[in-house]
Amino acid sequence: MTIKTSRRAFLTTSAVAGAASLAAPAYAQGKRSLKMATGWPKKFPGLGVASQRIGDAITAATDGRLTVEVFGAGELVPAFEAFDAVASGAADMYHAAEYYWQGKSTAFNFFAGVPFGMTTSEHNAWIYHRGGQELWEEVSASFGLIAFMAGNSSAQAGGWFNKEINSVDDLKGLKMRIPGFGGKVIDEVGGTAVTLPGGEIFTALQSGAIDAGEMAGPWIDLGFGFYKAAKYFYNPGFQEPTSAESLGVNLDLWNDLSAADQQVIKLAAAQENVMNPADFIANHSRSLDILLNEHGVELRSFPDEVMIELGKATEKVLADAAAADPMTGKVAESYMAFLDEAATWTEQSEQAYLRARSLARAS
Amino acid sequence: MTIKTSRRAFLTTSAVAGAASLAAPAYAQGKRSLKMATGWPKKFPGLGVASQRIGDAITAATDGRLTVEVFGAGELVPAFEAFDAVASGAADMYHAAEYYWQGKSTAFNFFAGVPFGMTTSEHNAWIYHRGGQELWEEVSASFGLIAFMAGNSSAQAGGWFNKEINSVDDLKGLKMRIPGFGGKVIDEVGGTAVTLPGGEIFTALQSGAIDAGEMAGPWIDLGFGFYKAAKYFYNPGFQEPTSAESLGVNLDLWNDLSAADQQVIKLAAAQENVMNPADFIANHSRSLDILLNEHGVELRSFPDEVMIELGKATEKVLADAAAADPMTGKVAESYMAFLDEAATWTEQSEQAYLRARSLARAS
Repeated sequence: MTIKTSRRAFLTTSAVAGAASLAAPAYAQGKRSLKMATGWPKKFPGLGVASQRIGDAITAATDGRLTVEVFGAGELVPAFEAFDAVASGAADMYHAAEYYWQGKSTAFNFFAGVPFGMTTSEHNAWIYHRGGQELWEEVSASFGLIAFMAGNSSAQAGGWFNKEINSVDDLKGLKMRIPGFGGKVIDEVGGTAVTLPGGEIFTALQSGAIDAGEMAGPWIDLGFGFYKAAKYFYNPGFQEPTSAESLGVNLDLWNDLSAADQQVIKLAAAQENVMNPADFIANHSRSLDILLNEHGVELRSFPDEVMIELGKATEKVLADAAAADPMTGKVAESYMAFLDEAATWTEQSEQAYLRARSLARAS
Repeated sequence: MTIKTSRRAFLTTSAVAGAASLAAPAYAQGKRSLKMATGWPKKFPGLGVASQRIGDAITAATDGRLTVEVFGAGELVPAFEAFDAVASGAADMYHAAEYYWQGKSTAFNFFAGVPFGMTTSEHNAWIYHRGGQELWEEVSASFGLIAFMAGNSSAQAGGWFNKEINSVDDLKGLKMRIPGFGGKVIDEVGGTAVTLPGGEIFTALQSGAIDAGEMAGPWIDLGFGFYKAAKYFYNPGFQEPTSAESLGVNLDLWNDLSAADQQVIKLAAAQENVMNPADFIANHSRSLDILLNEHGVELRSFPDEVMIELGKATEKVLADAAAADPMTGKVAESYMAFLDEAATWTEQSEQAYLRARSLARAS
């Protein structure tokens, strides 16, 4: 395990907190400025907004004792280099998605989202209360980092298609932009997963370079204008029933922080883990309405036989990943054990409730 | 609107933060001690644990500048008196469920959970991003309080029954322990809703004083031993598809706090709004397994026709409540408008995903 020495900026100012209220404490003179690298453009709906809210919450809760400066992807380092930047101390923290780091360890995929895996609420249960966080810290520490859940774009849509998927055969030869384990599943059923930055999906769909592409869901996808480049919007997706964001912190920095500052950072990450998925749900519903009623988008869903086939391919992809690397195997074992338990309860409770609600609302 | 003068304890000590780290600030000498009244026994699984975690997070994040002392129900005031205690300043904050205050205003029910209403993730979207919090603050301010979401025991189970529910007729004459709007729905379909503290449900079921009772779900219900007093465990429930907890704060105190202290309290509440539902999901699944496989509990679900009838009765109960009080009407209108939107997206996404996952897992 290599823990690199971080190079962080320390600012010393003589400023005091100001006159916020009589109860406000007089702070010591040492203030610390923290750089946050992110996996998306600054102010990007849902995601960039979340990064900023985390930074602002830390700054506000410490009255500026920790002041977080948020950088969009490419401003400090490119999105996929945020991990190395924080590990080396060139940045202090990142806000991104753990599957970005699958090149470092396949285990990271499990802390973001897994095809046919846990929903957002199940994922939170695993991370916070059934050993997920401890495993995550074990994986991250080996790179000189510690990370916490800090947002979730929740269940991802199936994606935008220029080819209808009516049978398993229609997946064969399908060129689809889909990252992570989901891409490996598409490969497994005879398609070709393509890796493209989000900003290049539209052109690739329009030119026919890809037959399909998935990004997030109605809110984000409406902004990208995919409805102008593809005929069919498929739902639900199989690839990421949850899609967690994370706040990674340089481990040297973390260990150097006071218990109070550590607590504030954990709280700011946790707040985003509830406010951010809520933002997606608040906006997906409205955007879906616009897509259907203003842009005449045609909704489709994958036939059951296709979902079952994708499920079988997922089992193989996950088993292969678990067998290829001991740490991934350890994480996968914990993940799959809790998924079995959680899926049983969800079927009895939320899933059965939702079915009943649909029945009642339609009557 | 009456804002009462609060009587709060201020402690002045000469203690300084200690030597947590070189970066730790030297605090001002003024520390503030805050009393939290709660709606459940201290250390009660899920709920009492959540209250303590909120208090501890505030104390830790402020390094004791705010020190929260948590009182179980009955220790400072009885559960249902926590609202008045905080409004008067006898306590500084409460951790409870808003439907406890339905005697003050029926509008409070909408901030806890509504029959056939929003799920936990939809409820969060409404509160945080679609106007729910602003309406809540309007209702609470008229009593001298401000409140935030601070936990959620999520989808409640249908309950424990000594009588099978095979048709709508079986609901007639049913004596059931079920509070809030859910109880009014049971009354509406010809049953009799009974109000009983959680601790008296077991004896009432065993003696036959009630035919059925609902409390929370497998985790909590296993602890109460209801399986020894009732034959059938029904799932899912219709009455509370989400069951939010809240942190209420005396409004005078709130306005007197620094922006940093307000931010910390909001963060601690938000953290609990993700950690607490995760705790329920983590433990419900395990407890359901024990109920089914160790205690031979018989699972049942309400027939579709019963759910549809309960849905119709819910419409009437909600319409009556909205018509009876302007503030409740205003809150209900906002709630129902977002429910329509959210339910459409949930049907397309999480609900459709869960159906597909069940199919794939069974194959």
